Amino acid sequence: MKTLLIIACLAVTIANAAAADDPLPSWNDGPTKSAILTFVQKVTDEGSPDFVPVAQRIATFDNDGCLWAEQPMYFQLIFALDRVKQLSADHPEWKTTEPFKSALAGDMQGLMASGKEGLAKIGAASHANVSAEDFADAARGWLATATHPKTGKRYVEMVYQPMLELLKYLRANEFKTFIVSGGGVDFLRVFAEQTYGIPPEQVVGSRMGAEFEMRDGVPTIVKRPTDLFIDDKAGKPVGIYQQIGRRPIFAAGNSDGDLQMLQYTTVDHDPSFGLIVHHTDADREWAYDRESHVGRLDKALDEAPQRGWTVIDMKRDWKVVFPR
Amino acid sequence: MKTLLIIACLAVTIANAAAADDPLPSWNDGPTKSAILTFVQKVTDEGSPDFVPVAQRIATFDNDGCLWAEQPMYFQLIFALDRVKQLSADHPEWKTTEPFKSALAGDMQGLMASGKEGLAKIGAASHANVSAEDFADAARGWLATATHPKTGKRYVEMVYQPMLELLKYLRANEFKTFIVSGGGVDFLRVFAEQTYGIPPEQVVGSRMGAEFEMRDGVPTIVKRPTDLFIDDKAGKPVGIYQQIGRRPIFAAGNSDGDLQMLQYTTVDHDPSFGLIVHHTDADREWAYDRESHVGRLDKALDEAPQRGWTVIDMKRDWKVVFPR
Repeated sequence: MKTLLIIACLAVTIANAAAADDPLPSWNDGPTKSAILTFVQKVTDEGSPDFVPVAQRIATFDNDGCLWAEQPMYFQLIFALDRVKQLSADHPEWKTTEPFKSALAGDMQGLMASGKEGLAKIGAASHANVSAEDFADAARGWLATATHPKTGKRYVEMVYQPMLELLKYLRANEFKTFIVSGGGVDFLRVFAEQTYGIPPEQVVGSRMGAEFEMRDGVPTIVKRPTDLFIDDKAGKPVGIYQQIGRRPIFAAGNSDGDLQMLQYTTVDHDPSFGLIVHHTDADREWAYDRESHVGRLDKALDEAPQRGWTVIDMKRDWKVVFPR
Repeated sequence: MKTLLIIACLAVTIANAAAADDPLPSWNDGPTKSAILTFVQKVTDEGSPDFVPVAQRIATFDNDGCLWAEQPMYFQLIFALDRVKQLSADHPEWKTTEPFKSALAGDMQGLMASGKEGLAKIGAASHANVSAEDFADAARGWLATATHPKTGKRYVEMVYQPMLELLKYLRANEFKTFIVSGGGVDFLRVFAEQTYGIPPEQVVGSRMGAEFEMRDGVPTIVKRPTDLFIDDKAGKPVGIYQQIGRRPIFAAGNSDGDLQMLQYTTVDHDPSFGLIVHHTDADREWAYDRESHVGRLDKALDEAPQRGWTVIDMKRDWKVVFPR
């Protein structure tokens, strides 16, 4: 038995070595790629003083702007607006009531003028008072067919190939990969498993309340627009604490919404790794940071050097952006 | 490479076969043990019409009265009362204010007379306005030293040996095992990994709100007595939906607090398995069900036959109760 197990271990080692030829083929050689490889090697090498046991190899990834694109606006907001249009047949009053009037007219300025309260109404109308199953079907259907206004791609095709490779590389090194997103957890869960290889139980996101009932003898979860939890900014460490229950050793984000997650992961916590996707590529994707209303990256960019966070320069570091 | 992988698979298969001689040695042969073995075999046999892919093999377990004992009262309540005693030095006013007065005097009747509101105050005083780290240290310290008033055992020694074997057996068959408990998630997480082999991210429980702050430059989570989520009764399917994001195919409980989790897992959802621990053994543990104020089992016991849930008769089905 022991011999067989040794052979089994050997096989796994050889398999890892083979995959390790270049685990990040879409990343250009340079300081960013090196920093990632060096970190993973040191925490997985049992002989290293920085070795981290498997159970503690928790890696968390923001989604919008980190795993997939987020311009010209969060894709989930586009879904919400499409869904409001779809549901409007049953709500004739929306034609004359804000924020629905602007939403239906595609008047983004009018919509933004309705503020957080207006967006919350759009969120509730498009995401609440529906069974979890019906909501998932709606989101799944939209993702299967809707296309991006600029690229014409389906949204799940606008994921970042280099980040897909990074997720796989970490998992090959026995990291457990999580999404920790400001996006809605039930929206994320309909595509995260197939798109990123991240199962539903490893998705942390914003959520609303829910109720359970036996509806005509069928167990049913109904989403309710109460008890909102916003998994963004200082909410991210809270979401991680509540759902994962331990500090990550690796976190990746791209905006000030990820600042606290990066702090929680790396400050006074060694070894650890903070990674920021900096959108610098107007040709292949978009270029934006401090002034952007979507995915603003300002404070976290200032804090990166002093914290030792690695900043990806998309234009320089990535051979490709989207999967070919 | 391929040959090595085949040998690796063979090694794993042989290892499984060896462990499978009797995966549940503390269970007496009979209908309960048979039902469990039959279910696991049919959902893991690729040739079976009831085969379930690995990703969907989610198993959820209640904790109090299902994985460890819960008499004469929930162990976490004993911890809360001990902690109130410990903290009382800083709160001289507690000596004259209910529910603290009764708690400090060990007057359980007086404490119960303070109702849910009183217990909530005990919960907040013992669990909130403390950093997550300090709370975990306190819980860990208590579990390491406190002993049960009747058995003299430490509380983590009062886990059910047959259930430990069941957890292992399910994991050996590539189930992902979760705790879904009315108990506090952060209390559970300090011992679940070592005691049950269940990591923090697979523990679902009741929770309170939390805040993140950089405290003197150190990332800190502070527990707050707000935004309570009670992971009990209809809250259990909600907790499962929010944290796991898919329906289990196996659920185990022991009280009416598990009724909705059992419904959610098994009703209109095949193949699936519902399991109830019925406390029938006054000699080796306790005997209680319909009339008990702790772990009342009444509606779920009535519903078990029509739903096809398997009911463990502790006295008949278990060779041993606690680990020897």
